[in-house]
Amino acid sequence: MSLRQDTITLAHGAGGGAMHELIDTLFLAAFGDTPLLQKEDQARLPLAGLLAKGDRLALTTDSFVVSPLAFPGGDIGKLAVCGTLNDLAVGGAIPLYLTAAFIIEEGLPRAQLERLVGSMAEAARQAGVTIVTGDTKVVERGMADKLFINTTGVGVIPAGVELAIGSARPGDKVLINGHIGDHGAAVMLAREDLGLVGELTSDCAALHLLIQPVLAQCSGVRCLRDATRGGLGGVLNEMAGASAVEIRLVESDLPVRPQTQALCELLGLEPLFLACEGLAAMVIAPEQAEQALALWRGHPLGRHAQIIGEVTGPALPGRLSLITPYGGQRLLDVPHGLQLPRIC
Amino acid sequence: MSLRQDTITLAHGAGGGAMHELIDTLFLAAFGDTPLLQKEDQARLPLAGLLAKGDRLALTTDSFVVSPLAFPGGDIGKLAVCGTLNDLAVGGAIPLYLTAAFIIEEGLPRAQLERLVGSMAEAARQAGVTIVTGDTKVVERGMADKLFINTTGVGVIPAGVELAIGSARPGDKVLINGHIGDHGAAVMLAREDLGLVGELTSDCAALHLLIQPVLAQCSGVRCLRDATRGGLGGVLNEMAGASAVEIRLVESDLPVRPQTQALCELLGLEPLFLACEGLAAMVIAPEQAEQALALWRGHPLGRHAQIIGEVTGPALPGRLSLITPYGGQRLLDVPHGLQLPRIC
Repeated sequence: MSLRQDTITLAHGAGGGAMHELIDTLFLAAFGDTPLLQKEDQARLPLAGLLAKGDRLALTTDSFVVSPLAFPGGDIGKLAVCGTLNDLAVGGAIPLYLTAAFIIEEGLPRAQLERLVGSMAEAARQAGVTIVTGDTKVVERGMADKLFINTTGVGVIPAGVELAIGSARPGDKVLINGHIGDHGAAVMLAREDLGLVGELTSDCAALHLLIQPVLAQCSGVRCLRDATRGGLGGVLNEMAGASAVEIRLVESDLPVRPQTQALCELLGLEPLFLACEGLAAMVIAPEQAEQALALWRGHPLGRHAQIIGEVTGPALPGRLSLITPYGGQRLLDVPHGLQLPRIC
Repeated sequence: MSLRQDTITLAHGAGGGAMHELIDTLFLAAFGDTPLLQKEDQARLPLAGLLAKGDRLALTTDSFVVSPLAFPGGDIGKLAVCGTLNDLAVGGAIPLYLTAAFIIEEGLPRAQLERLVGSMAEAARQAGVTIVTGDTKVVERGMADKLFINTTGVGVIPAGVELAIGSARPGDKVLINGHIGDHGAAVMLAREDLGLVGELTSDCAALHLLIQPVLAQCSGVRCLRDATRGGLGGVLNEMAGASAVEIRLVESDLPVRPQTQALCELLGLEPLFLACEGLAAMVIAPEQAEQALALWRGHPLGRHAQIIGEVTGPALPGRLSLITPYGGQRLLDVPHGLQLPRIC
C-alpha cells in the first residue's frame, strides 16, 4: 500500500510522515542542493566573504495571493521569486537567499503544486539565488484559496549605495524599463472572460541584473522602486510625497501596449495604476539619464525603456501630474482602494 | 468624511490610500521605532559589530494558521513571534530581526487585528527582537480563515556552535524544559466545546534566553529542537532517525499535566504527539546533563525541566521507544497524519 496521494490533505501539514514525504519528494526534489537538505529548523549561512566593511543586510518579505494561480507569462511560483527579488533589487541589494512558506488548501492537486513549485525553483535558478529554508501548512477546504506563498529575501547592499524614496530633487529625470500595466491586465484577462482577443502577457521578471549595472556606473541614481500593487502611479506618488517634489510625466512618452490600453478603455481603468511585476521606476540626476537609458535598453528587460518625465520644482509638492497630448496638466492621485484585487 | 473603517476591506490590501492608512495607524503604531518607519521595500540592517569571524547567519520562516486566533496563554500574534524565535534558538542562534507578513480575510474586525498585532509587538519587545519589514495582503471573504501570519527570523550563530539533528550518540541524555502537549491541548479546548473544566494554558514562549546559557556553558549539547507540530514524539523520532540511534524514554519521567493527560485519555490521544510551543528537547553528553538540568530549572521557563530518557545503542536504530511503568517497552512511531490540524 502506498500512502502517497494525488491531492494535498491535512495530513501533509501535520508534522508527521505524510508531511515529511511531501517535503522530501516534492519540495526538496525541486529546490535541490541547498541548506534545505540538512532539514534543520533554520538555514545556516556562512557570511564570510559575502560582506565587506560598510555593507548592509537587506531583508524583505512578501506574501503572494494571486488569483488565478497561473496566467500568461507566469504563475504564483515565478511571481513569489521575482517579486521578492525585486524588492531587494530596488534597494540596491545583491540578492542571496530566499525562504519559501506555503499555505495550501486541502484538496489542491499534487500535480498542480508540483508545477508551481517547479516554476519557483526555475525562477530562482535563473536569478542565481538559493531557496534555503521553508515551511508547509495545510488548511481545511474553504479556509484558503488553493495556495498562498510567502517569500522572504536576504541580500547585501554594497557600501556606498544609498537609495531612498525621499531623495528625488528638482531637475531629476524619471526612467522606466518597459511597458506599463501588463501584469494587471494579463491577470485580469486570465480571470474574467471578457471576450477580448490579443496577446497580453505579464511582465513578471527579476530585475536585479537590469538594475545592478546602472547602480555600479551611475552615481546619480536617487530613488528606485518596482511598481507592483498601485502600479507606476502608486510608486511615483510615494516618491513625490516622500521627496516633497512634484513629479511630472509626459503622457505621450508613456509606453503602454495597445492591448493594455484597449482593456483599460473598455473597463475605465487608468494604466498608470495597473499592477506591474517587472517594471522599475528610477529617478536619476539629469546628466546621467541618457547613460542609464542606454544601459537599460541594452538589456533584454529594458528594450522598451523610456524617460517618461521629470522632477519639478515646489509648485505642487508631493503630487504626480501628467502633461496630456493637448498640453493640459492632470493630477494623478492614488486611488483610496483598488482597481483589481489579488493581482500579486 | 472619514475613510477609516471598522473592518478590513479589500482596499486595505490594494496598495492605495487605504493600505497606507492601515500601515501607518495600525502596524507602524504597534511596531514602533524600527526600519519599518523608513517605508522602503526592504529593511537595511547594519551588520558591523553583530558578526564576528566564523559566525553564521541563521534564517528561518514559518506561517501561522492557528484556529482559533486566540486561546488561553496566547494568540496568533504571540505564536508568530515565539515560534520563529524558537526555530532560531534551537540552531544556537541569537535572534536579531523578524519580518511579518499578514494575509487578512476581508471583514476581519479592525479592533481584533489591532489586538493581535499588539500582542505580536509585545512578544517581540519582551524577546528583544525587532520587526524590521512587513507585508499586508487582503483576500476576499471566504478565501482565507480570518488571519494568517508569516514571520521570518534572522539571527547569528556564534562561531563554535554546531548543533545538528544527526549528532546524538549512545549514552547521551535527553532533557526537556517543561510539560508536554500543553499547546495542543489548550487549542483543542478553545476550539471544541468538550465540557471539560480545569485550567489548560498554551506553553507558547520564546526559548532563546533559556537555551543560550546552556549552550554557553555546556559544550556537550548535541541536538536541540523545539517540539511543535508532531509534538515531542515527532522531534525525538527525527533525531533518532537522523542520528541512527535509539532514543529510549522513561514514561514515569515524562512531565504531563493532569489536565492534558485527562484530555488525552478522553479523546484517545498520545500526549507525546500533541503540539507544544514552548518546549525544547535537548540531547546532551551524559556528564553535562545534570549541569544543564540545573541551569534550566533556574529559569522561569525551565522550572519543570526533566531528564526524560537516553540515547541507547544500535538495537533499534532510528526508533523512539518508551519504557512503561510496568517495565515493558513500547515503540512510538510518528503518525502518518495528524492528531489535530491548525494548531500553529
